[in-house]
This record gives sequence, structure tokens and C-alpha cells, in this order.
Amino acid sequence: MPIVTVKMLEGRTDEQKKALVEKVTEAVVEAAGAPKENVTVIIEEMAKNHYAKAGVRASDQ
Amino acid sequence: MPIVTVKMLEGRTDEQKKALVEKVTEAVVEAAGAPKENVTVIIEEMAKNHYAKAGVRASDQ
Amino acid sequence: MPIVTVKMLEGRTDEQKKALVEKVTEAVVEAAGAPKENVTVIIEEMAKNHYAKAGVRASDQ
Amino acid sequence: MPIVTVKMLEGRTDEQKKALVEKVTEAVVEAAGAPKENVTVIIEEMAKNHYAKAGVRASDQ
Amino acid sequence: MPIVTVKMLEGRTDEQKKALVEKVTEAVVEAAGAPKENVTVIIEEMAKNHYAKAGVRASDQ
Amino acid sequence: MPIVTVKMLEGRTDEQKKALVEKVTEAVVEAAGAPKENVTVIIEEMAKNHYAKAGVRASDQ
Repeated sequence: MPIVTVKMLEGRTDEQKKALVEKVTEAVVEAAGAPKENVTVIIEEMAKNHYAKAGVRASDQ
Repeated sequence: MPIVTVKMLEGRTDEQKKALVEKVTEAVVEAAGAPKENVTVIIEEMAKNHYAKAGVRASDQ
Repeated sequence: MPIVTVKMLEGRTDEQKKALVEKVTEAVVEAAGAPKENVTVIIEEMAKNHYAKAGVRASDQ
Repeated sequence: MPIVTVKMLEGRTDEQKKALVEKVTEAVVEAAGAPKENVTVIIEEMAKNHYAKAGVRASDQ
Repeated sequence: MPIVTVKMLEGRTDEQKKALVEKVTEAVVEAAGAPKENVTVIIEEMAKNHYAKAGVRASDQ
Repeated sequence: MPIVTVKMLEGRTDEQKKALVEKVTEAVVEAAGAPKENVTVIIEEMAKNHYAKAGVRASDQ
């Protein structure tokens, strides 16, 4: 039942995303004791002008 | 005040999306007793390479 | 694969919540053509002092 | 540590988005007493056919 | 239509939360040009053992 | 900048949660190439009567 959402800046390759969902799934199985088939992972990419830290967007740095 | 978010894989037609928000809104009105004008429904589509079950993305099946 | 999240003010009975997830699930199955076993519904309740419209919280009205 | 997400219809200019993250960040710093460098703001835009109020999408009005 | 969600560690007073939703609402009205009555703000508090930066939870520091 | 949210049913021990945020953080660092200090992990627990699959809540099984 764990549903994992990863928000990150756009720019990762498809290979990185594939590895990301595999490794995050394994981490949840190991640590939370959830059956692998119950783990969902969703990637949500953010554009650089839609993400800000300390009031400054990634696109404005 | 209910705010409903539906995350699903991309690929539905605009007619399906229209029906979806109508039917989900009705369901919330009936079951939760919320006035119709207070119900918000948001659709968030996921690309196939951004959604994984059991560590395998929809794009890799 | 649809994952539906319903955010609403706390105060509904358990019977209302049961009906809510049933009706919303049916609505998604009918409108989006998703198999019933793939539909997930999550309820997230908000306390009245954690929800505001037009800058006024439900607890302050 | 505050993480602020602003969901809104697409259509704002980049200048508006820049001002939005600056002003929201300041608001959180002032009201919650969080150090500015700890405040994250994320903008998530919705297409008009993905947002509905009272069962009617913004694209159908 | 803007819906703003503020996730932060628990511990703020009710006065701080009241000020937070007021100031964030004003910020969105000014910067995004949204009518005040359309702005929704939701506060979501996190327990210290449910929030981690760099792999270390706030409760373990 | 990756912000990871893990939604799961309540019931895990504090040790499991500690391990969860550590392992998920490592997974994101390895796969996405993000500096460890930039990774945020948030746990959100769901009560059994607030989570449903196929229209049936975990509390009704």
C-alpha cells in the first residue's frame, strides 16, 4: 500500500528514472516490510521556474 | 470544501475526463453531503515512464 | 492505477466515509474505464483551524 | 522546513510566478517564524480541462 | 482557484497559523491576481519523526 | 531538491520509520545523483478507515 511520490527538477535521463523507481521500491520493501507488488512509485518533475528555495527560483540563480 | 485529486495515466479522452469530474463530483455530494458548488476536482496525469508498480514502470512493461 | 485523494473537513461519520470511497470508486470505474481493483481512494481530513477560504479559517467563522 | 505548494490554472506570466514565490516566501517567514533559507515554494499549474468546480471544468464554462 | 498547501513541522501556535493563512492569501492575491474569495489555504502539520532532511529525522537530531 | 513523500497505513514502529527515511534517502542519492543534504523525506500515515482499494477500506476487510 505504500505510495511514494518523488518530486524533483526536470532533467534526469530515462535510465536515471528507471533506476530511481527500482531502488526506492527496494528501500520501501526492506524498511517497511511491504510486499513489493504493493509498492507504487510516482515521479513528478518540476520546471526550474516552478521551484524556489529561500524565495529564489532555480531558473533565476 | 472537499478537494478531490485524481491521479491517472495519460491517455483518456477529453470526453472521459469531462464525465469523470461530473461523476466524481456527484459521488462526493451524495456520500459526504457537501453542497455541489463547494466540490473541487483536479485531474493530474502521469506519463507512463513516471509511474511504477512493484518497481516496474508502465513504460517498461 | 487511478489514485484518488479526497481532502475534506473532519466531522463525517464512518458510514459516510465508507459510502464515499464506494461511490467515488464506482464513478472512476464508469468514467475512466479503469478496472475496479486498480482504483485507490484515500481520505485526508483537515482540522477546522487548518483550512481557510478567502483568508478566513473554518474555525474562525 | 515549510514546503508550500501553489496549484493554479496555467496562464500566469513568468514575472507573476517570480513575484508569487517571493511574496509567499516572505509571508511564511513573517507568520511562521521560519528562516528564509528553509522555505520551499513549488508552483503546479493545471490545464483548464483538468480543473472543475461544482462539476464543471474551467474549459467548459 | 489557487489552492495553497503549507506543510510544516507541528508546534506553531493557533495565532501563528491564523496569521499564516492571512498573509499567504494576501501574497497570492497580490502576485497572481486571483480574487481573494477564490484562494484556499490548507495547513498540513508533520510530526518530527515523520520529516527528514539528508536522511536524518527532525526527531533524531 | 528531491522531495519524497511516503504514504502508508499506520502501524509501523519508529525504528521502521527511521530505517525507511534512511534507505529511501540513499536510494534517491544513488539513482538521481542528488546531494544527500538536498533530499527531503516525509512520511504520511493513513488510518485504516481512510484507505480503500477496489472500493473496500482496509478497516472493512
